Amino acid sequence: MKLAMLNDRIVPVDSLDPIYFDRGIYFGDGVYEVLRSYHGKLFALDDHLARFARSLEAVRITSVDIAEVRSRVERAFRTSELPDAKIYFHVTRGSAPRNHVWNADLEPNFFLTVSEVPDDSRDKANGITVSTHPDWRWKRCDIKSLNLLANVLARQDATDKGCDEAILVDEAGLITEGSGSGFFAILGQSLWTAPLTANILPSITRKFVIQAARNLGMEIIEQCLTPEQAVSASELFIVVTTKDIVPVVKFDGTPIGDGKPGPQTATLIAEFRKFTG
Amino acid sequence: MKLAMLNDRIVPVDSLDPIYFDRGIYFGDGVYEVLRSYHGKLFALDDHLARFARSLEAVRITSVDIAEVRSRVERAFRTSELPDAKIYFHVTRGSAPRNHVWNADLEPNFFLTVSEVPDDSRDKANGITVSTHPDWRWKRCDIKSLNLLANVLARQDATDKGCDEAILVDEAGLITEGSGSGFFAILGQSLWTAPLTANILPSITRKFVIQAARNLGMEIIEQCLTPEQAVSASELFIVVTTKDIVPVVKFDGTPIGDGKPGPQTATLIAEFRKFTG
Repeated sequence: MKLAMLNDRIVPVDSLDPIYFDRGIYFGDGVYEVLRSYHGKLFALDDHLARFARSLEAVRITSVDIAEVRSRVERAFRTSELPDAKIYFHVTRGSAPRNHVWNADLEPNFFLTVSEVPDDSRDKANGITVSTHPDWRWKRCDIKSLNLLANVLARQDATDKGCDEAILVDEAGLITEGSGSGFFAILGQSLWTAPLTANILPSITRKFVIQAARNLGMEIIEQCLTPEQAVSASELFIVVTTKDIVPVVKFDGTPIGDGKPGPQTATLIAEFRKFTG
Repeated sequence: MKLAMLNDRIVPVDSLDPIYFDRGIYFGDGVYEVLRSYHGKLFALDDHLARFARSLEAVRITSVDIAEVRSRVERAFRTSELPDAKIYFHVTRGSAPRNHVWNADLEPNFFLTVSEVPDDSRDKANGITVSTHPDWRWKRCDIKSLNLLANVLARQDATDKGCDEAILVDEAGLITEGSGSGFFAILGQSLWTAPLTANILPSITRKFVIQAARNLGMEIIEQCLTPEQAVSASELFIVVTTKDIVPVVKFDGTPIGDGKPGPQTATLIAEFRKFTG
């Protein structure tokens, strides 16, 4: 490489931090996790580490020691002294001159941040509004990768419409999940959500919500809904690591039920609380 | 944000270069171009800048002045003093704490590199081999974005099979394009390639190759081929900015024609040379 340019400044290649040649930025060639703590205790760390290991394997980033990742997460969490912490971390394949093909001896880059979990009591109490957007994502949404531009564009579209989340609809006209959340509907006594085969992320919150619903004796139906079916539900909610269950009170402008968070969602939130202590 | 961690080192957030919070790395939230020069002259700069402007618009990155990008490309190229230069540049939406929703006032980050075009005379003379891979990419491949993990995984799969390029096959069983190239087949006197509506990149080399074929009186058929049809072609080639036309002599292990670069491809290469001077 002869030279590089940062904004309007020509710089010698050797002077640049290797982060500028991170395959994460060239290709989104990396995977990530987000987890949180409740009251000073990390929630579902094992699940997050297991999923992270599966993502790494799927994109063939080897040489990451999961025990070492665990120890870093725990150390950063302890150091932050935050009882309710949001922890983000990613691993990219490493830094190298741009080339689709990778060298087996690349050293992966690990990056982590700890921040405070934002207060979501208002969303829980009032519910949120959602709007639909075409699901433009790739065909390997089972991998929690850094290729998130489709999610970003969908979420921004929702924001521009005054909504809090985008619900993605695939080419068959079926709801897959939210741009950064899982999606659930309650029809009668049944809880509906997309099956893991529907090109969705194997959400960890989803797993615990399904367990909570089972504990409450609800029927679980893992099947995709159309937007029309979703609007006819008695209750809707999304699930996301940082906020667990958040009621949805409006879908593409149409109020759900009586337009307020529903009683079964409230019961599920209470049941979920038993997992988080 | 309370703290950050780089590999095994906890660091104060304020000490980090903003590049660590680049939305390019968090989300692949950026677009890019690659262009080259022939003998001291940039090729198709207008086309590349026009496509770049379309990509920026599609992902709603505003406030990038294309005239300024042109001036940076030209200045970097002149400074490099390379007659045959490969110029890569990207713009990301900017650096900010991780959040799918963006702030309208973010300052985009521009990054550019200039390197020497690698010698491709052996590939031109001997041809290359290709293998197929499922097309896992997102549904907006018309945008030249930094979400390239599907391309990376496909290309690496080809490399592992001893091949030079991956040819992507969509869910309908049709060839779209290569992981980093356009794909063409010659059947009789006709030149076949996927239509721009087939979720492919509007390749600039593709445009010039089609013009070259027209100049030679060939019939152009913009229609996707199956791998079976591709194998039955008399000649195959890929097109890529840095190497223009490269003959393909083997497809999923099957020799094409007599297993050597074909005469019509050679004629097209010669015709393409008239554009590059």
